[in-house]
Amino acid sequence: MQVNGKSYRTVWFEPPYVLMIDQRQLPFAFELVTLPDHHATAEAIRNMTVRGAGAIGATGAFGMAQAFLSARAPSFEAELREAAQCLRETRPTAQNLFYGINTVYEAGLSALHAGSGLDSGIEAARAAAVQAAQAIADEDAQCCHRIGLHGAPLIGEGARVSTHCNAGWLAFVDWGSALAPIYQARREGRYVSVLVDETRPRGQGARLTAWELGQEQVPHRLVTDGVAAFLMARGEVDLVIVGADRIAANGDVANKIGTYASALAAREAGIPFYVAAPSTTIDPDCAAGRHIPIEERSDDEVLFVDGKLASGEVVRVRIAPEGTRGRNPAFDVTPAHLIRGIITETGVYPASPEGIAQILLAREKAPRKAT
Amino acid sequence: MQVNGKSYRTVWFEPPYVLMIDQRQLPFAFELVTLPDHHATAEAIRNMTVRGAGAIGATGAFGMAQAFLSARAPSFEAELREAAQCLRETRPTAQNLFYGINTVYEAGLSALHAGSGLDSGIEAARAAAVQAAQAIADEDAQCCHRIGLHGAPLIGEGARVSTHCNAGWLAFVDWGSALAPIYQARREGRYVSVLVDETRPRGQGARLTAWELGQEQVPHRLVTDGVAAFLMARGEVDLVIVGADRIAANGDVANKIGTYASALAAREAGIPFYVAAPSTTIDPDCAAGRHIPIEERSDDEVLFVDGKLASGEVVRVRIAPEGTRGRNPAFDVTPAHLIRGIITETGVYPASPEGIAQILLAREKAPRKAT
Repeated sequence: MQVNGKSYRTVWFEPPYVLMIDQRQLPFAFELVTLPDHHATAEAIRNMTVRGAGAIGATGAFGMAQAFLSARAPSFEAELREAAQCLRETRPTAQNLFYGINTVYEAGLSALHAGSGLDSGIEAARAAAVQAAQAIADEDAQCCHRIGLHGAPLIGEGARVSTHCNAGWLAFVDWGSALAPIYQARREGRYVSVLVDETRPRGQGARLTAWELGQEQVPHRLVTDGVAAFLMARGEVDLVIVGADRIAANGDVANKIGTYASALAAREAGIPFYVAAPSTTIDPDCAAGRHIPIEERSDDEVLFVDGKLASGEVVRVRIAPEGTRGRNPAFDVTPAHLIRGIITETGVYPASPEGIAQILLAREKAPRKAT
Repeated sequence: MQVNGKSYRTVWFEPPYVLMIDQRQLPFAFELVTLPDHHATAEAIRNMTVRGAGAIGATGAFGMAQAFLSARAPSFEAELREAAQCLRETRPTAQNLFYGINTVYEAGLSALHAGSGLDSGIEAARAAAVQAAQAIADEDAQCCHRIGLHGAPLIGEGARVSTHCNAGWLAFVDWGSALAPIYQARREGRYVSVLVDETRPRGQGARLTAWELGQEQVPHRLVTDGVAAFLMARGEVDLVIVGADRIAANGDVANKIGTYASALAAREAGIPFYVAAPSTTIDPDCAAGRHIPIEERSDDEVLFVDGKLASGEVVRVRIAPEGTRGRNPAFDVTPAHLIRGIITETGVYPASPEGIAQILLAREKAPRKAT
């Protein structure tokens, strides 16, 4: 995708350096960070320089490859074990992160043990790890592009799309999930405009989605989180596309808090509500949305807002009385019956046990495992 | 109601001074302003030192009474005409404001013309104007208290109430509309807790409702605007009470943006959704909600947030990229079929043409016209 007219990915690897867009600075500053080793890369995951399932998965893979490059005999394997553990601990519940780390770890170790002498084995392991890490990032980008290709036909000329949170390219290596069909429809020459929910409390819509769409020159308007429901009722929205944090086996979807209210309003207005996500977002072991644990985060996110002063300084301000406490569930669950379809890298499926089974089957048949 | 353990009204009159809580400073500072004449009072309405239908109505009445106190023969009547005009122009669409100004104006002029000599007539006019203004404020407070008395039976022991925006005592002279039943239930000895929507973009929930409830020691939690829908679905809310900006003859309700999304979620969860408002909020000339014009305000409210730095300084910060534009409809319309009942000063009525007709009939039969 484009930033200031130049092509970027969210995170990429120029061995031994991992480079990424510093998402903590957006939208007020566009800065790249260069991470020389897996310690620095782990810290970037931990401190949220990078966020979003796909982007974190690729970053973990790159970090693991960095460990292969820096580890030295005779402690080569011990250093790798330690590095894998260090990277895994950055985000204890990020499924894609573990997949990225483990895939690179296993690819490198296989090559190591296949080598004839120790030195040639280490060189082979390093090459295999770097290649595996790059493949994971490429797969993530391709997977999202396929989501865009499958979703784009749902977006007609002049379509007005509502979205929530950031499921754009900043959450993945490239393209994004919910925004990929929009970017693709634009490339196919259609005029599309987007209504962006600001997505309190962390403001991913205001900070990231609005920025992405601006850089890609997609017409958009930012609204506070109660507005889309009303504009749907007034006939000013044609469809809704959101991302997903986890999809249960029955088609229920956990996504950023506020998604459920948007789905209710879409149903009431007769507007299709789509979820766009890689098939890896499905948790087949989770039978229904009610089993998905919902993290309650610190209420500081509710009580304070980060923003930029006229002077350019970015500061945190309190917006509620001293002593007031908040509640901050980070996600909500949208029941399957409110969802028109789930857009994945292999097609658009109904949000139902049958639809989910079809998605899992299509993934098994695919030539490569998606990230 | 209570502030720091002491009783206050939102605005009151100690002739010739109008005193009010400076709502622009809340919740970061509790300051009173003293307004010596109707020019200062008009400016306080204009610059939003005071806001809320009932509070503005009483302030307009007080300002008009101030004009009676300061006007001098021989230009007595000309000065009053000018003052009335000055006060009316502060908020061109505030129905209660015009009612307050006109009632005092007419009461004073009647007394003036009933007087025998010019001087005694002026004294009589001044006394009548002050009395009429105080009566309007008292009527507003009593009307809200009656809303509380009629609404309190809907709130059982341990009830968890969700509310949106600020329809508390700061919006009226005392008690409030949506919060009055909560305050009354508490006085009747029941434990009630409140889930407060922050109400972006202007944050009346975070700034005013949370502050009011804190001062009254009502347990509450602040949430961002998408949260209540999810907590309703999870069974953590028992009922919703909101205020109203305008009620159409068919029972549709215009209220702060975000109200409609809350009503949809309540219906889905099987939770009763009530609107609490003085009967004067009904516009019998407006047949249905779709005829209510919805003001779109400056998108600066979406793009910027006001808050307090750790240093104590209150500042405005930008929360979206430079160049991003927003949309900012200030109100939405909740259709009557989503509303379980309308709580007024004479009782609880269905949100339907019949219910609205009953409210209007009950008001005509009431001993005094409510403000």
